[in-house]
Amino acid sequence: MTGTLTPPVTAIGEDDLESLARGAAVLGTGGGGDPYIGRLLAAQALREHGPVQLVAPAQLPDNATVFPVAMMGAPTVMVEKTPSVERIGHAVAALAEHLGVTPTHIACIEAGGVNSTFPLVAAARLGLPLVDGDGMGRAFPELQMVLPTLHGVAATPMSIGDEKGNVGLLTSIDNHWAESLARSLTITMGCAAIISNYVMTGAQAREGLVAGTLSLCTRIGRRVEQVRAAHGDAVLAVADELGGRVLHTGKVVDVARRTTTGFARGSAVINGADGDLTLEFQNEHLVALRDGRVEVTTPDLIIVLDTDSGEPVTTEALRFGHRVSVLAAPADERWHSPGGIALVGPRYFGYDTDPVRFDARERP
Amino acid sequence: MTGTLTPPVTAIGEDDLESLARGAAVLGTGGGGDPYIGRLLAAQALREHGPVQLVAPAQLPDNATVFPVAMMGAPTVMVEKTPSVERIGHAVAALAEHLGVTPTHIACIEAGGVNSTFPLVAAARLGLPLVDGDGMGRAFPELQMVLPTLHGVAATPMSIGDEKGNVGLLTSIDNHWAESLARSLTITMGCAAIISNYVMTGAQAREGLVAGTLSLCTRIGRRVEQVRAAHGDAVLAVADELGGRVLHTGKVVDVARRTTTGFARGSAVINGADGDLTLEFQNEHLVALRDGRVEVTTPDLIIVLDTDSGEPVTTEALRFGHRVSVLAAPADERWHSPGGIALVGPRYFGYDTDPVRFDARERP
Repeated sequence: MTGTLTPPVTAIGEDDLESLARGAAVLGTGGGGDPYIGRLLAAQALREHGPVQLVAPAQLPDNATVFPVAMMGAPTVMVEKTPSVERIGHAVAALAEHLGVTPTHIACIEAGGVNSTFPLVAAARLGLPLVDGDGMGRAFPELQMVLPTLHGVAATPMSIGDEKGNVGLLTSIDNHWAESLARSLTITMGCAAIISNYVMTGAQAREGLVAGTLSLCTRIGRRVEQVRAAHGDAVLAVADELGGRVLHTGKVVDVARRTTTGFARGSAVINGADGDLTLEFQNEHLVALRDGRVEVTTPDLIIVLDTDSGEPVTTEALRFGHRVSVLAAPADERWHSPGGIALVGPRYFGYDTDPVRFDARERP
Repeated sequence: MTGTLTPPVTAIGEDDLESLARGAAVLGTGGGGDPYIGRLLAAQALREHGPVQLVAPAQLPDNATVFPVAMMGAPTVMVEKTPSVERIGHAVAALAEHLGVTPTHIACIEAGGVNSTFPLVAAARLGLPLVDGDGMGRAFPELQMVLPTLHGVAATPMSIGDEKGNVGLLTSIDNHWAESLARSLTITMGCAAIISNYVMTGAQAREGLVAGTLSLCTRIGRRVEQVRAAHGDAVLAVADELGGRVLHTGKVVDVARRTTTGFARGSAVINGADGDLTLEFQNEHLVALRDGRVEVTTPDLIIVLDTDSGEPVTTEALRFGHRVSVLAAPADERWHSPGGIALVGPRYFGYDTDPVRFDARERP
């Protein structure tokens, strides 16, 4: 039982997983995959090893060694080839051995379905605290697309492993090359791999990460549950938690998909009372257009929720006839810097538009 | 000046490179690429660091640590992105550091154009002796296709690096997975990479390698030169050195190629006094057919030489109108074991035929 709407979150136990996974899927902005497998593994790890302590980035000592861990590839594939709890811990251990350092903390590099729960597995397995933060404040599809890149943190040395026991250690000349090399191994490994990279000192993590992501996810998840129990509007509650607003509500009337080089690309049209809103996605929702006019783009968050339940809807789960609400919310301010826009702006993804920032005011 | 036809070869200096490279291209059976780049780099390294000592496998102490080094990918690409002498040495150094062992010897994993000269570069650069042997006794296109695989030597841990400075360290569950993972990195690195793998103790190298490859290559190369200077038949001299025979002499009347997944596949028809001989190749020549009847297949050696000069002709260099002689010669006996045939027999390469061994007798 949670007594208030926003209780402090200082540890994640098995009972928190449902809320955490729901909130993570919200910040996943359509990507990050079905959090089911991540939750299943995290539940197993937390049952075996007990709750994982959360540490705010501000509390990290300078000389901490923070090891992010994540899943790379197509989350849908994970259902077919679930890695074991041991393998997830091994990704961290292999990199730690290679670097000759002892990890003091685990971190999330992405706020996404699977990638918010995977690090819990590693933390539980290795008996380490987890940083309450992440490297994006949302989800993005490529490895170099993290705020630590903007702060000069190298993506490599990194480890990459599959569920069978194949392991690679990569050192690249820059973070884009880390993406290319790791992507080709991920595809060969069967389109899903476990990675550990962007190892940071405490000082680097304080500067490079977005603070509070996991407690925010958990709060969002709990609030959706509470509001729903009270027959309130869960969609509005989520918008409130994120400082965002509802752009559009309606019915999915068209979804076009193509899967190319491991990414789920496509677009969806949502027909509502005030016309059509079109979403362009590549794993994550990246551009929202109304009547041909770009309303919001990456790096700001474009989130699709089931209108009735407030549950997040992944791009893969978007179906004709689904009644959904589209929220927009502001990204971490650093993403709007020139370096941030070069990494994750709409043009990087091939959309011929300047970035359009989320505007808290209703459109005229 | 060489005083006899077969002087002992105990070291490789700059003056030996031409002979070595020519002989290596003969054993390369059409693959291994133009040895020009390998020779160029080796010449530079030998000029800087002096000749490289050759050590017979039989002379290796049990506790030697032998590091093979090789080029993976398309040899033709190397011309565009030549690695530095330093990078080739670095492939060995990176693996040695990862394993925490000090290399005592360098070795060739393949007798092929580039892969017989690359290890010279590493040996010269690192000041180490080179094993007079190789892992195949010929050339084959995939990483697991070496005799050490048959002797239970693991392909990994291995290093893989490009000319830019990207480096991977791979540990695979078996040698086929090492090929898959390293191949995908090689393609991402631009279709050419430097690898070090199959690290062996002296005892393993004595058992697993083919002895005498580099001195054999050098002898072949010298003999071609000498016989040609004496206006003799260089093709017959090569056949004699290899214990092989001339299958066919004629003119290339057809060459069909297709490059798929990094391999040069195709077939060539050679029209001569006794009809047509068809060669099927995939980097290397793998099957020779006459009138639809399979005459010789992999693992035995099928070698194409320029009829006049005795110079080896790579599959890429085969051209309409070229007058060539086709030799066949026996492979290392271990390749004919069931395990050897499973690794490199014609069916592995997709040819619907049982292996046909080289027969020293003339066909009826």
